[in-house]
Amino acid sequence: MPHRNPERSDLNAFFDPRSIAVIGSLKEGFFGGYVVIKSLLNAGFKGEIFPVNPSYKEIWGLKVYPSIKDVPQKIDLVLIITGARSVPGILRECIEKGVKAAIVVSDGFAERDEEGKRLQVEIVLIARQGNLRIIGPNTAGVANPSKGVIPNPYEMGYKKVKEGAIAICAQTGMINPQAFPYGDLGYGVSKICDFGNKADVDECDIMEYLENDPATKAIALYLESIKDGQRFLKVSKKVTSKKPVLILKSGRTEQGAHISASHTGSLAQDDRIFDAACRQSGVIRLNTFRELFELPKIFAYQPLPKGNRLGIITFTGAVGVLAIDEGAKYGLSVPLLSPGTRKKLDAIFPGLGKRIVDIGPPMAVVNDYMSIYSEILNTVTVDPCIDSILNVIWTGPSGEFMEEYLKIYRGLQGNRKPIASWVYGPRVHYVNEMTCQLEDMGFPVFPDIEMAIKALGKASQYAKTKGGNR
Amino acid sequence: MPHRNPERSDLNAFFDPRSIAVIGSLKEGFFGGYVVIKSLLNAGFKGEIFPVNPSYKEIWGLKVYPSIKDVPQKIDLVLIITGARSVPGILRECIEKGVKAAIVVSDGFAERDEEGKRLQVEIVLIARQGNLRIIGPNTAGVANPSKGVIPNPYEMGYKKVKEGAIAICAQTGMINPQAFPYGDLGYGVSKICDFGNKADVDECDIMEYLENDPATKAIALYLESIKDGQRFLKVSKKVTSKKPVLILKSGRTEQGAHISASHTGSLAQDDRIFDAACRQSGVIRLNTFRELFELPKIFAYQPLPKGNRLGIITFTGAVGVLAIDEGAKYGLSVPLLSPGTRKKLDAIFPGLGKRIVDIGPPMAVVNDYMSIYSEILNTVTVDPCIDSILNVIWTGPSGEFMEEYLKIYRGLQGNRKPIASWVYGPRVHYVNEMTCQLEDMGFPVFPDIEMAIKALGKASQYAKTKGGNR
Repeated sequence: MPHRNPERSDLNAFFDPRSIAVIGSLKEGFFGGYVVIKSLLNAGFKGEIFPVNPSYKEIWGLKVYPSIKDVPQKIDLVLIITGARSVPGILRECIEKGVKAAIVVSDGFAERDEEGKRLQVEIVLIARQGNLRIIGPNTAGVANPSKGVIPNPYEMGYKKVKEGAIAICAQTGMINPQAFPYGDLGYGVSKICDFGNKADVDECDIMEYLENDPATKAIALYLESIKDGQRFLKVSKKVTSKKPVLILKSGRTEQGAHISASHTGSLAQDDRIFDAACRQSGVIRLNTFRELFELPKIFAYQPLPKGNRLGIITFTGAVGVLAIDEGAKYGLSVPLLSPGTRKKLDAIFPGLGKRIVDIGPPMAVVNDYMSIYSEILNTVTVDPCIDSILNVIWTGPSGEFMEEYLKIYRGLQGNRKPIASWVYGPRVHYVNEMTCQLEDMGFPVFPDIEMAIKALGKASQYAKTKGGNR
Repeated sequence: MPHRNPERSDLNAFFDPRSIAVIGSLKEGFFGGYVVIKSLLNAGFKGEIFPVNPSYKEIWGLKVYPSIKDVPQKIDLVLIITGARSVPGILRECIEKGVKAAIVVSDGFAERDEEGKRLQVEIVLIARQGNLRIIGPNTAGVANPSKGVIPNPYEMGYKKVKEGAIAICAQTGMINPQAFPYGDLGYGVSKICDFGNKADVDECDIMEYLENDPATKAIALYLESIKDGQRFLKVSKKVTSKKPVLILKSGRTEQGAHISASHTGSLAQDDRIFDAACRQSGVIRLNTFRELFELPKIFAYQPLPKGNRLGIITFTGAVGVLAIDEGAKYGLSVPLLSPGTRKKLDAIFPGLGKRIVDIGPPMAVVNDYMSIYSEILNTVTVDPCIDSILNVIWTGPSGEFMEEYLKIYRGLQGNRKPIASWVYGPRVHYVNEMTCQLEDMGFPVFPDIEMAIKALGKASQYAKTKGGNR
């Protein structure tokens, strides 16, 4: 099958449709069209919604149409949640109706059996002939929180996905709102997309779309396979020169690749080839599923570092030692602070540190600790000898410094060096509260010290490839 | 200085004293003797507490003694929180009084300057001559929750550290209760110990003590240096043959090692030598600070696997693929399930999987999902072709299955294969609730898929070195 070059307008119908038809099951439950419509209404989708099902008259206060042909208006996007065998016929009707974009949620295609593989080829042929794009099949769909486009087919238990600057796309529904607590996050996402079996729309199409999406500042992808290696290399090179692309790819091992093939019905490649492609194109490769949601934060919410010199502010020397070891993996060095900074720090509290600034000792003995803390932070962040900052915060037994901390960080907004924070303390509640508040202000907080360092290290490496490092 | 061979009774005074004297600052605040006594009282310490300070008469309803010599009873353990220069004199008085164990919380020793180094040598000489053991100086001390021995010098904001089977010891106070939310955990700890500068009691002393501590099933250590390489090799070999020892060691890089030396005043070794020592002695080496608190759970709360064959129960195929890749790092393989199991699973729901059991598809379409789930779990856990289980749980939008899940897992308690779980879902609250409840039952939950796999992988490797693997 020849590859179709996407036009941006094609994918735009998936993320910014004025009207959506939901075709198939409307049964009450936690999966299906019933939930899709509920999710759209909850998210405040402003466009029109047309449920399609011959057995219903009305749902969620909306008229239900027996067939898509009966819908009187133009339809930008359809979501199909029916048995796999009905999908080809429905797609033909959609094309007749002039629809240009279809999310096929239905499973039972290439991931299932031979019959499913045949069906998948059939729907792609229908789509190409009819100038229709497909996301899926076997997908949990997309989300664009800025437009209230959250047609989630699974109940998610919250109404809003916070709007932000990170696009998360994957060959699995594990990144869609029913699987990840976007409602409880401090940071926001620009677009979500589960490619499913990626019979038509694939990682390259999405990268090209997001390259030109002004809301997206960083792109995170989970892939089990690459559809077209040559195109991937070309597209990712182009996109990473504009925005960071972070990829977690599974199927690294032979057994993993084999299983991956049966999971989404796609072929996997030799991992070494993929690894070389990432290095060539400047793609940042991730190691764990959680990193997909964490590492992009440094790119989306903080400036790029101008070099590889890391400053450390911590309540404990151990974190400093760990950070130095970890930083070395990514080419970060922890330099002596400038003579001016060292002099200022010594005046604030003798022995605060020449390299790692350990604020534990003054904490235990100084009366007006918070004003000292503020001075330290403001002194270290402007030191000309450092390019990025690892910032460790102890929340204390009862969150007593929370307000003061937050005031100080408010004052740091708009600083020109990236700050990655790690928050710890004896009470989970205050750690979570501080994390959310800081992220809300645009200061990313990482779940581990090591991940905070990795974020700064990868930011430094990316800045260097973009020519931003000294 | 000659090495002193510890006797178990020595360290026992640190963890199970009948009487504790707290010498030094009693000023109200979040650090010092005032907090130590409050922590002991909160934890329900049953022994006697003797505050010592010439400027106070009474604190927390307890009589304060001007000097330790004025205390009429025998004292098992002293905690010293004074300026560094007062410590030698106080230790001499303690020895005169017959005290055998001292925790020197005070800082300003080898980690500070030349004068501090000299003082540290002096206190060690005094201690050895007087047959007294020292933990510290520059330490946040110890904890033994089973005896209410939580003399924490920093305010921690909660009263109880849950009693359990994991000992966590470190060359930093980052593992003590003011830094880690032991009060909010689902699992418990047996002993906590910050060695501080480890002028006397060191990693080997602690390992030997914990080897014979019946409450401890797994030992987690954070180290920045090894005091005596030969002894470490000998002791760790002996201890790992009885209980797993998991070590995170920093100072891997040259710069890290250099900084480490200034942090706790101890010398670091070449990391490659340490790595070789770990391989020789069967020590499990950790990579991140968080793993210190997470990986021991599989050893403390689950049986060891009899082999390297991993079974996977998941709501999503992607986790299966990631797990296979990750498992390969630790020699885990994901085999075909036995014909009997496959037949049973197919009868429960067609296409449930031959290798990875993907319970996502039945979830979306079956009415009585929970009874099916129970059957699946019980079938897979007894399959003769697998030795350990990765168990992925989706908590759902409103925790609606929580009670039923928990009932099913209650039925699995006492099963003979290790189960490592990963819990995810759209609401942080339910994920946390499920995590705590499961850990309370003895089923460890890991924060990442990859860490769950690593836990099972390390358990399999450890079992093999102990001769437990087939």
